[in-house]
Amino acid sequence: MAGDITGRCALTLEYDGTAYAGFQHQENADTIQAQVEQALSELFGCQMKIRAASRTDAGVHARGQVVAFNLARSFEAAKIAPAVNWHLPRDIRVVNARPVPAGFDPRTGATGKIYRYFISNRLHPPAVGRRYVWHVPQPVDIEAINRAAKVLRGTHDFAAFQSAASTVTDTVRTIRHLWALRRGETVVLTCAGDGFLHNMVRILVGTLVEAGLGQRSAADIEAILLSKDRTAAGVTAPARGLFLERVLYRPSLDSYPVL
Amino acid sequence: MAGDITGRCALTLEYDGTAYAGFQHQENADTIQAQVEQALSELFGCQMKIRAASRTDAGVHARGQVVAFNLARSFEAAKIAPAVNWHLPRDIRVVNARPVPAGFDPRTGATGKIYRYFISNRLHPPAVGRRYVWHVPQPVDIEAINRAAKVLRGTHDFAAFQSAASTVTDTVRTIRHLWALRRGETVVLTCAGDGFLHNMVRILVGTLVEAGLGQRSAADIEAILLSKDRTAAGVTAPARGLFLERVLYRPSLDSYPVL
Repeated sequence: MAGDITGRCALTLEYDGTAYAGFQHQENADTIQAQVEQALSELFGCQMKIRAASRTDAGVHARGQVVAFNLARSFEAAKIAPAVNWHLPRDIRVVNARPVPAGFDPRTGATGKIYRYFISNRLHPPAVGRRYVWHVPQPVDIEAINRAAKVLRGTHDFAAFQSAASTVTDTVRTIRHLWALRRGETVVLTCAGDGFLHNMVRILVGTLVEAGLGQRSAADIEAILLSKDRTAAGVTAPARGLFLERVLYRPSLDSYPVL
Repeated sequence: MAGDITGRCALTLEYDGTAYAGFQHQENADTIQAQVEQALSELFGCQMKIRAASRTDAGVHARGQVVAFNLARSFEAAKIAPAVNWHLPRDIRVVNARPVPAGFDPRTGATGKIYRYFISNRLHPPAVGRRYVWHVPQPVDIEAINRAAKVLRGTHDFAAFQSAASTVTDTVRTIRHLWALRRGETVVLTCAGDGFLHNMVRILVGTLVEAGLGQRSAADIEAILLSKDRTAAGVTAPARGLFLERVLYRPSLDSYPVL
C-alpha cells in the first residue's frame, strides 16, 4: 500500500524516568526498554527487540533517546508513532519515527550526545517540577562553574569522572561543549561530547557545583583530571536533574524524513 | 529574644496541585488548606487556621499563593519557612514568610492576580512535565490568539466566562494583561487582572485556543462577551496547565522584609 514502509525504523523517545529502574532491561524491575519492547510486541503481535543509543540510569529523563528496531511487517508510515504511543504508558512517548538504513545501530552509529542538567538554586526546595531538578540551596557562582568547565572541555582522560564500579579502561573522551547559564532560580548545565563514561555527566555536574560553591578552583579541576581517581572528584549529582536531550548521527537523523 | 516575631504572618506558597482536591478545605478530600493548617498546627501545638488569596481548583498549581495566619507564639523569624516546610508534604513549599499588619487579609487585600497557563503545542503528547501542561496537538496561531486576547483586555462583563454553576452576579472584571507567546513547543499565556470569576482563566484559555485554531475570530469573541452566556464561550481548559503566579498588594508584599 502507498505510504507503507518495511525494514528498519528509528524512534525518538521522550520519557520521564522517575518511575523506572533505568533504560536497560532488568529482571524484576520496570524499565523503559521493557515498556517499549512490550508496546511494540503488542502492536505487531510478536516478540520485538530494540537497540538504544544510551542506557540511561534509574530516574534519568530523556527528550531525545533514539531506539531502532526492524518492522515485523509493513506498516502505514504516519501511524507508527501514534500506534506505539497507544500501547505505551503516558510517561514514555514516541515523538517521531523515521525509516533508517538496514544496518543502523543507534549506539555504535552515534557520533555524540547532548545532555542537560537542571538545578533549582534557591533557598527553599521546589514543589513544582521537583522530579526534574537537583535542589542546591546555597547560591552558586555561574562564572566559577564556567571557569572550571573550561578546564574540562576538550579531550582528556576522564577516569576520575566515572563510577567507581565501572570496569571501562579506555577512559579518554572528548567534551565539545560544557556550559552553565542561569534562568531565574534555575541553573542549566549543557554538556555535549562524543561519548560518556558511566555516571560521567552526573559526576561532572557534582564537581562543577562544588566549583560554583567555591569549594574547588579551576586548578583543583586540573588536579582531579590528572589524579584519574574517582574519590578526587565531586559528588555524583542526583539522577532526577539529568536529561538526555539529543543523540547525534552523521548523517543527522534529521536527514531521514519523519514518518 | 532578638529576631523573634509575634503577630500576623504571610507565607508565599508554591505547590503542585496534582494530588489535591483544590485549595479550600473539604470533608473527605485532601486539600492544600488542610495540609498547611495541619503543618502549622503540628508546628505550634494548637489548632491553626489560615486565610488565602485564592481558592485554586483541583489540579491547579501555584508559584505565588499567599496565605496569612496569626502566630500562636513568638517565633524565630528566619526559621518560620523551614519549620513549616519540615511539616509539609514535598509538593507544597513555603518560599517565603513575612510579618504583615494585624488586619492583613490576603483575599480582600489583594489588588490583582497574575496567572500563567502552559500549553504543549506539538503532535505527540509530552512525557516530561505532563502534569503541568494542556496538550493541544494542532498548531495554534499565536497572532490569532493575541488578536482575540486584545478584545478581552480591559473592563468587561465576563458573565460568559464563568462556570455555569456560579451564582456570582457582579461579573464585571478588568483584565490588565492577556498575552500569548511561543517558547519552542510550549505556548505560554499570561493573564493579569484585578479579580477573576470561577473558572474564568480556564474558559478564557479554552476560548483563546479555539481562536488560535481558527475556530473563533476576534468578532466572535466580542459576540461572546455580549452574549453573557457560558455556552457561547469555548471549552474550560484543563486545570493542570494553570499556575497562580503572583498575588498583588498595595503596598506590595515585597515592601515587608522576607523573614
